[in-house]
Amino acid sequence: MAQDFDKLEEEKVFKDPVHRYIHVRDRLIWELIGTKEFQRLRRIRQLGTTYLTFHGAEHSRFSHSLGVYEITRRIIEVFEGKPHWDNSERLLALAAALLHDVGHGPFSHSFEKVFNTDHEAFSRKIILGDTEVNQVLRKVSEDFPEKVADIIGKTSDNKLIISMISSQIDADRMDYLLRDAYFTGVSYGHFDLERIWRVMRPKEDQVVIKQSGMHAVEDYIMSRYQMYWQVYFHPVTRSAEVILRKILHRAKSLYQTGYTFKYAPGPLSPLFTEDLDLAAYLRLDESVILYYFQMWQEETDEILSDLCQRFMNRRLFKYVEFTPSNYQAYADLREAFKEAGLDPDYYLVVDSSSDLPYDFYRPGEEGERLPIHLQMPDGSLKELSRESDVVEAISGKKRTDHKLYYPADFINDFSSQRDAKERILQLLK
Amino acid sequence: MAQDFDKLEEEKVFKDPVHRYIHVRDRLIWELIGTKEFQRLRRIRQLGTTYLTFHGAEHSRFSHSLGVYEITRRIIEVFEGKPHWDNSERLLALAAALLHDVGHGPFSHSFEKVFNTDHEAFSRKIILGDTEVNQVLRKVSEDFPEKVADIIGKTSDNKLIISMISSQIDADRMDYLLRDAYFTGVSYGHFDLERIWRVMRPKEDQVVIKQSGMHAVEDYIMSRYQMYWQVYFHPVTRSAEVILRKILHRAKSLYQTGYTFKYAPGPLSPLFTEDLDLAAYLRLDESVILYYFQMWQEETDEILSDLCQRFMNRRLFKYVEFTPSNYQAYADLREAFKEAGLDPDYYLVVDSSSDLPYDFYRPGEEGERLPIHLQMPDGSLKELSRESDVVEAISGKKRTDHKLYYPADFINDFSSQRDAKERILQLLK
Amino acid sequence: MAQDFDKLEEEKVFKDPVHRYIHVRDRLIWELIGTKEFQRLRRIRQLGTTYLTFHGAEHSRFSHSLGVYEITRRIIEVFEGKPHWDNSERLLALAAALLHDVGHGPFSHSFEKVFNTDHEAFSRKIILGDTEVNQVLRKVSEDFPEKVADIIGKTSDNKLIISMISSQIDADRMDYLLRDAYFTGVSYGHFDLERIWRVMRPKEDQVVIKQSGMHAVEDYIMSRYQMYWQVYFHPVTRSAEVILRKILHRAKSLYQTGYTFKYAPGPLSPLFTEDLDLAAYLRLDESVILYYFQMWQEETDEILSDLCQRFMNRRLFKYVEFTPSNYQAYADLREAFKEAGLDPDYYLVVDSSSDLPYDFYRPGEEGERLPIHLQMPDGSLKELSRESDVVEAISGKKRTDHKLYYPADFINDFSSQRDAKERILQLLK
Amino acid sequence: MAQDFDKLEEEKVFKDPVHRYIHVRDRLIWELIGTKEFQRLRRIRQLGTTYLTFHGAEHSRFSHSLGVYEITRRIIEVFEGKPHWDNSERLLALAAALLHDVGHGPFSHSFEKVFNTDHEAFSRKIILGDTEVNQVLRKVSEDFPEKVADIIGKTSDNKLIISMISSQIDADRMDYLLRDAYFTGVSYGHFDLERIWRVMRPKEDQVVIKQSGMHAVEDYIMSRYQMYWQVYFHPVTRSAEVILRKILHRAKSLYQTGYTFKYAPGPLSPLFTEDLDLAAYLRLDESVILYYFQMWQEETDEILSDLCQRFMNRRLFKYVEFTPSNYQAYADLREAFKEAGLDPDYYLVVDSSSDLPYDFYRPGEEGERLPIHLQMPDGSLKELSRESDVVEAISGKKRTDHKLYYPADFINDFSSQRDAKERILQLLK
Repeated sequence: MAQDFDKLEEEKVFKDPVHRYIHVRDRLIWELIGTKEFQRLRRIRQLGTTYLTFHGAEHSRFSHSLGVYEITRRIIEVFEGKPHWDNSERLLALAAALLHDVGHGPFSHSFEKVFNTDHEAFSRKIILGDTEVNQVLRKVSEDFPEKVADIIGKTSDNKLIISMISSQIDADRMDYLLRDAYFTGVSYGHFDLERIWRVMRPKEDQVVIKQSGMHAVEDYIMSRYQMYWQVYFHPVTRSAEVILRKILHRAKSLYQTGYTFKYAPGPLSPLFTEDLDLAAYLRLDESVILYYFQMWQEETDEILSDLCQRFMNRRLFKYVEFTPSNYQAYADLREAFKEAGLDPDYYLVVDSSSDLPYDFYRPGEEGERLPIHLQMPDGSLKELSRESDVVEAISGKKRTDHKLYYPADFINDFSSQRDAKERILQLLK
Repeated sequence: MAQDFDKLEEEKVFKDPVHRYIHVRDRLIWELIGTKEFQRLRRIRQLGTTYLTFHGAEHSRFSHSLGVYEITRRIIEVFEGKPHWDNSERLLALAAALLHDVGHGPFSHSFEKVFNTDHEAFSRKIILGDTEVNQVLRKVSEDFPEKVADIIGKTSDNKLIISMISSQIDADRMDYLLRDAYFTGVSYGHFDLERIWRVMRPKEDQVVIKQSGMHAVEDYIMSRYQMYWQVYFHPVTRSAEVILRKILHRAKSLYQTGYTFKYAPGPLSPLFTEDLDLAAYLRLDESVILYYFQMWQEETDEILSDLCQRFMNRRLFKYVEFTPSNYQAYADLREAFKEAGLDPDYYLVVDSSSDLPYDFYRPGEEGERLPIHLQMPDGSLKELSRESDVVEAISGKKRTDHKLYYPADFINDFSSQRDAKERILQLLK
Repeated sequence: MAQDFDKLEEEKVFKDPVHRYIHVRDRLIWELIGTKEFQRLRRIRQLGTTYLTFHGAEHSRFSHSLGVYEITRRIIEVFEGKPHWDNSERLLALAAALLHDVGHGPFSHSFEKVFNTDHEAFSRKIILGDTEVNQVLRKVSEDFPEKVADIIGKTSDNKLIISMISSQIDADRMDYLLRDAYFTGVSYGHFDLERIWRVMRPKEDQVVIKQSGMHAVEDYIMSRYQMYWQVYFHPVTRSAEVILRKILHRAKSLYQTGYTFKYAPGPLSPLFTEDLDLAAYLRLDESVILYYFQMWQEETDEILSDLCQRFMNRRLFKYVEFTPSNYQAYADLREAFKEAGLDPDYYLVVDSSSDLPYDFYRPGEEGERLPIHLQMPDGSLKELSRESDVVEAISGKKRTDHKLYYPADFINDFSSQRDAKERILQLLK
Repeated sequence: MAQDFDKLEEEKVFKDPVHRYIHVRDRLIWELIGTKEFQRLRRIRQLGTTYLTFHGAEHSRFSHSLGVYEITRRIIEVFEGKPHWDNSERLLALAAALLHDVGHGPFSHSFEKVFNTDHEAFSRKIILGDTEVNQVLRKVSEDFPEKVADIIGKTSDNKLIISMISSQIDADRMDYLLRDAYFTGVSYGHFDLERIWRVMRPKEDQVVIKQSGMHAVEDYIMSRYQMYWQVYFHPVTRSAEVILRKILHRAKSLYQTGYTFKYAPGPLSPLFTEDLDLAAYLRLDESVILYYFQMWQEETDEILSDLCQRFMNRRLFKYVEFTPSNYQAYADLREAFKEAGLDPDYYLVVDSSSDLPYDFYRPGEEGERLPIHLQMPDGSLKELSRESDVVEAISGKKRTDHKLYYPADFINDFSSQRDAKERILQLLK
């Protein structure tokens, strides 16, 4: 049984800028943190290419994972002794919180698009496969890894614990909003975390919020909204991501067409052939990727070399707003690019906010995620946006934004092609 | 002339968690930040291996360099119009502040020990050589790069500007103390930066502090003292650094003895042959290093492979206090390690705090760095520790600390070698 | 001319928890702060009875006034050299900012209701009358006091300066939101002040906001909304204010009906006869009021004595929600109170949020205050709520809230009057 | 028994800017906070006249007392289950923490000097006498008030609990350092409270600190040192206190010599006759004092009127450094003042830092207060300054500072007495 797994003789603490201290008393958690699969998260940034916009945003998924664990631990302290809370599930909740992102690879979001990888599937493999994480989890019980994987995969019957880690107001989001605000230095993103965890109450199948805490939750929703527009969705960050994606595309395409790399892609090859097993996946981290981008600046393929130089030296694409319905303009632009010698597949890129893994609160639109429920003084539950004007206001909106990214520097340098330049600039307006 | 270099049409700002905003109004500074040599600092951590102790300490030399620039900019605002301050030197001070660390390579401190590289020499080469940085600086005037290099190299006649960037209370240290405290999350390291820059006064050959600001400076000295012992000198960080150094040693040694690497060291080779030119140096960053550490876990050389696994998976060495005079014990231990099959050159490592690039304030002991002077109400100058009890107290101490690092896990696993284990454990006491 | 008024030899600073330092370089400002009329603001709390709900909220109008001055000073630094800004009006803006609240008396809001005093009229008298403030202002020019009074009274032709100090996003509100959040300790109320003052632009008749700063302004609007509901409108604070108002009512009524006070109201008498001249007004501060409340606990009039004991010992009234249309229930309750021996004029009090001097942003509803305008990249102006979903969402709401306050302790003690108690409790439901 | 006193049905929280939330779960604590003797602390400032130097320092002893309670509560959470801690004493520690300052009167420090009152004696009377506090305490047990009084009076046998509330590193000092830093806005005064309370360990007769927490304690000691010199001992604050003391002196002297007050001192009379009983003492608060100062500006006695005007309008005395051994100069100055018509008993005042209720850490010099002990890994105890260089450095110093306060404005106005002015200015040098 989970509870029998022993306690550390002395509590261990991690100094954390967001939560001040992260406290570990369970040997299970301590050992999970020490596994190599978990340590690997130190080499994967929480915010991908955002550090090219906000230079402080270098923080890793390792620190975020510790934060999610810590928030979950504190929520459980509030839950202990309350109805609907079965304290024998404590370690399950803590382990799932800690490991919820363990399957993430380098620049996950872009990789998944280009290579059809799936970090959730790898999370499952790490937890159930031949890994140090699995060995540690099995010390609790033979079926414990499966239980943890089911929480993270949202297939568990324990909807309450799922909602602690993965819902509209879960430990995951609360940590990343605060953490991303701290490291980017923006003044949005703050809300009263302590207040929220104190008004959380366990129910059969979800965590609900005591109505007296509604204003703290409003603040959280607003933070999320502001972070979405100001940080996650920042057009410069997306420009870097567009380039990163195009590098991966180009390298894959070159690989598949037999191009001879000066710097052979070694550990990246299984990506290009799309037969990445767990061992190969775990070998990848952002240092490996950046090593190749660094080296590929010297490749003979001009597109690959140019895109890598752009990424490494932060010579990003500019952008204009784009209306997807305006097909003709886009087609014309592609044509003009081609004529000017720029491959539009790499140099004229549409990017939409709906591609993002972040969003703001839109109850009813997010299939799998339950909306936030307030528990009224009489015990009944009400969906948050029914009670809160502010939340209703921002949750009703569906704003998808499209941008067209292109290398403005190239076009400005078209001194020998004045006509092409004129035409492109005209179309970009 | 420097002042003629034009201003940006609109001020640019960087969001910075430490200084809130970093303001750029000079085209020179904006273009320097955009050079690839400066952008490269994004891929070099400010605190080397400290992130393995304090998980938040992922911040780069890029953000620190911007911070040093910003503090210098604010000091200059105070200096403008004051005696001894020649405002035509403004851009010189700003450029030197921004570029003071531009020559740093990955894990500089360890690299310099193992490969005899010298980041100050590379700073000079970057500023004077065939680089984007040099091109931008030359727009001010032909001799401007030389002037900037002389400030950074401390060979300039302009002792005042040197002291702004490199003295006991300079923009460099003030930024890194605040920044390192912010990202590690420790509660030391805070002092009233705004107060200090407001009481700074230019003199012929140095910046002095108005006596009314003494207490703010005391606080700064105390922060530095606490950061030294709590962060910079943390024994776990040093353990990681010991391992990193030994990896480099091993790889160099293997290379020189003709070992065939599964992952050939490519861009690292010039390090091993100690003929690193500027281009080769600029190619190196922490991603490149970590890529090799990641790959070399699979090398056949057991020592290299083991040390790389330790570094990547944070299986660090333990330590005991060590008295250097106790030669015999050390010799005996080396012998015992050899007998047990552990090469003491790699697995029994002495590390001393005097190896660190950080220190606390010890006036009179630091050859090149002037002590801090207070300007008394009558205009006379007094060395800080003469006026401040607190500063005198901590500055009088010379505490060098020595530790012996070794792989406790290996020794505990000596099941077949009980005698060796006993003997080593005995000696380690 | 204003600009000729000289500068201080050395800048003076006040340590301020909200703005870190408040900087004074103008002799005019320094001397105004030293006047006794301005020093008097130290003895008037910024938030009236709020300290009985949030114990940290003891801060004075003195510190708020310095804060409004400081924000205005920083806005002017941004305005200098920009079109529409006439720097010869600098001192006018600063003096008006500093003095905008100088006419406030103790617990102004309640006093104005009970005694028909008008703090704006007293501001004018202090600035134009025989006061130290007037003497200092006249050093600038004979008509300078009048100009300052016209800004504060919003009758000046200089709409731009009026809007700096008194509009929907003025120095006044920005300071009090941040300051009230700091001293109460609530986590709402924070926004990026520095960002806002940097995107403010002077126009002919108002300050506008560069469109790029919209999100910072949204954050400010949200802070204001949250502070309104969480702090300014807190029902416990209003309970204290209801009691305070009733004390003043009772004392006035007793005075007018010839009651002999054990502690004669001395400096309060002109309030009761409503012939308060400037000298008498300036004598009043919160210590004087609290002295009487302290002493009047011992009065023979039971109502006065009881209400004073309630206020001093924080035995406040409880409340129920109240629908004003429900006349009958209210009339019945009054009747029941009378029968139970409780004078409903003092013990059954309706309080409405529309009585508050605070509000949230409702463009178009506030006669005198211009809505916030964004300056679009093409130079045109747009009202904020047209551009911002969040602002539109919360600004459309008109929520007036009514509560009925009564002494629950008395009613619970009706042991000899079980019927009355039952009936009242029934009606209160 | 203490533990049987029941718990509140629902935890109550106070929003506190220093500790974020103050949590009350025990009915005893909740009822004590509601007593009128405790509510009275809202009307007594924590820092006396400091608000005239640092305008934010308006915070009350009420908020400080809640803070001391909260820190004690958190220390007890760490102590629970540890050796030497008897959890049946929990309520005793909490009640003593909450009530440790309950006997303070307005501007206690000055009052005690002038009127020989003793706030510790009044604390005892409030706890044991006919008060609401006593009634609430007696609900625990008949002897509980006595026990609480003995802790506060340091006469209890329970040295451990005494040391939690009254020692060199107690809940009292830790709260006031953090709180005073917060409200003044100074950047000193911060230390890692959470770290300290986590390394506190109960011993037979005192709280000790685990050696691993030494650096956090060093930081606390440094904060205390800086707060002593920068805040508590600020010469402007002391100037205001000198004037306050002289007002009290003058009023007492006038009262005793039969002067007819325009504003009869009513509730102050028992002070002047030094027969202040508990009821009369409890009636006094800072509003009452300030009311009289406000009114006495209009008294016919010139000295009383002048001093009151100085205090209310912040026209403070200036000061020069003073060497007590220099009797002759002081005697000459007194003579010169008399000749110039200024009574030196009121206008030439020596003030020494040793008069202050604050100090910095000086082990061995403070009779009743135990020095701080570190618990070494082997269980032995060491006095802090033996282990810490920094602490040794600042604790060895005994710096008493003497200043001579006088009304510089009067002397500068001696236009008709040029000789006297010259002579006094000469002597003041």
